[in-house]
Amino acid sequence: MAFAFSDRLAEAVRRRGPLCVGIDPRWESLPLAIRTAHPDPAAAFEAFSIKALELVEPFAAVVKPQAAFFELLGPDGMAAMKSVLAAAKARGFVTILDAKRGDIASTAEAYAHAAFGPTWDADSLTINPYLGRDAVEPFLAAAKAASRGVFVLVRTSNPGAGLFQDLKVDGRPLYRAVAAEVASWNESTLGECGLGDVGAVVGATHPRELAELREAMPKVWLLVPGYGAQGATAADVKAAYRTDGLGAVVNSSRGVTFPFKPDDPNWEAKIVDAARRASVELR
Amino acid sequence: MAFAFSDRLAEAVRRRGPLCVGIDPRWESLPLAIRTAHPDPAAAFEAFSIKALELVEPFAAVVKPQAAFFELLGPDGMAAMKSVLAAAKARGFVTILDAKRGDIASTAEAYAHAAFGPTWDADSLTINPYLGRDAVEPFLAAAKAASRGVFVLVRTSNPGAGLFQDLKVDGRPLYRAVAAEVASWNESTLGECGLGDVGAVVGATHPRELAELREAMPKVWLLVPGYGAQGATAADVKAAYRTDGLGAVVNSSRGVTFPFKPDDPNWEAKIVDAARRASVELR
Repeated sequence: MAFAFSDRLAEAVRRRGPLCVGIDPRWESLPLAIRTAHPDPAAAFEAFSIKALELVEPFAAVVKPQAAFFELLGPDGMAAMKSVLAAAKARGFVTILDAKRGDIASTAEAYAHAAFGPTWDADSLTINPYLGRDAVEPFLAAAKAASRGVFVLVRTSNPGAGLFQDLKVDGRPLYRAVAAEVASWNESTLGECGLGDVGAVVGATHPRELAELREAMPKVWLLVPGYGAQGATAADVKAAYRTDGLGAVVNSSRGVTFPFKPDDPNWEAKIVDAARRASVELR
Repeated sequence: MAFAFSDRLAEAVRRRGPLCVGIDPRWESLPLAIRTAHPDPAAAFEAFSIKALELVEPFAAVVKPQAAFFELLGPDGMAAMKSVLAAAKARGFVTILDAKRGDIASTAEAYAHAAFGPTWDADSLTINPYLGRDAVEPFLAAAKAASRGVFVLVRTSNPGAGLFQDLKVDGRPLYRAVAAEVASWNESTLGECGLGDVGAVVGATHPRELAELREAMPKVWLLVPGYGAQGATAADVKAAYRTDGLGAVVNSSRGVTFPFKPDDPNWEAKIVDAARRASVELR
């Protein structure tokens, strides 16, 4: 029997701390050296991302490729994403495919099988709850069958997140209603670490909500974006951890993988420094 | 200056009626003849989908490829999707890429540029509103710049859609709050037809809500799934049209493209019959 996703994530966080490195390649941000060596953008994305995995490995055990940037390059970009996910797996990273998928019935099933089957073979996937329980269930079922996990969007890190997420439902914000469902979906998936396979995305840019949601979902893994380039600090994300130090992975994308100008010959050292600094700050 | 998306859609609906044919290829449903001629699943998806476009062309001017089924086949599947979108465009169809994308800031921008730029070159894209206004805006801006459109999920067709969409916010369901935002985003995009480029997805399986939402968003194009295989009838979708006969495209996927068993030698004629029947019923 394969280890539960939640326990693999717990082991990863115990081993190298809660830093999750987001892999968001952009052509115009890539080092010139990579662009020159790989004039084909998809090949450059692949080479840069795989180099970044190697550089951050001592400081992070979780990585999160962002599907949108690979999709922008079309089928070749998606092939690069597949290679990056495979390279991350080969290095022992826990992978989160950040694709924010959401659809109904057999369509949700197709996305879930793509994520957890041989197509992308990701350890976990971000999903959008707006379509309701029967739209989320195919993802939960496929995750369970393959010992994988999901992270459901609950409170996102963007400034305008509140437009719908903060609307009051029975006196409390909508995101609390979503959190309550996530906690209930998670309950039957608890691993030995005491946490489950149904996680939640909760932005670090709203520290009060983060503390509130940690309490509302005590057994739920939180994926916390917004640290670093988006403005949240290590102090802002403290509320995301449980008292046992588990319970959250904190994502930084640009802050770790693009702390340089494209013409900087020392870009590799700068990624190492940025990953080390983030890792120390978050511990 | 390119024609507004809303006016191109109006012209398409005036020409061939409101039927939108969903392109949801599944390997196990494909005609054996296609599978035998194309043992590679992506090649089979492409061949079947392009043949379906040819067969339904007299009866529908709008087609909606479902990204999930192509994504399940990985990069080769995405290449097939690109070919299908290009073939649809070459035949003069208005295309809706049904990918239900949603993310924030530069990530949303990447999805939008993928949808409307050379990557997929779709006429319109379905998007998820849960992340809020600043997450929707990059899609609206990219659509405007390229004379394309979006369809925002408002009330979906699945049985469990109500879990969050029906929660009461200030005494009315959440989907009404989303509808109000959609109507407001749409207001600055009105074309000569009197409708705009920011549409809404409203399931046909809830006829009462459909009538209510038609009234709440009088200038918004509705994309209405749920007709046919999902159970809604032509009578159920009547409420989606404006008095001028415009305002809605009604989607049928399996009901039109898979009205046969895989070993049926007359599968092409059955697609033609199903498309004709749907087209007549909906007019």
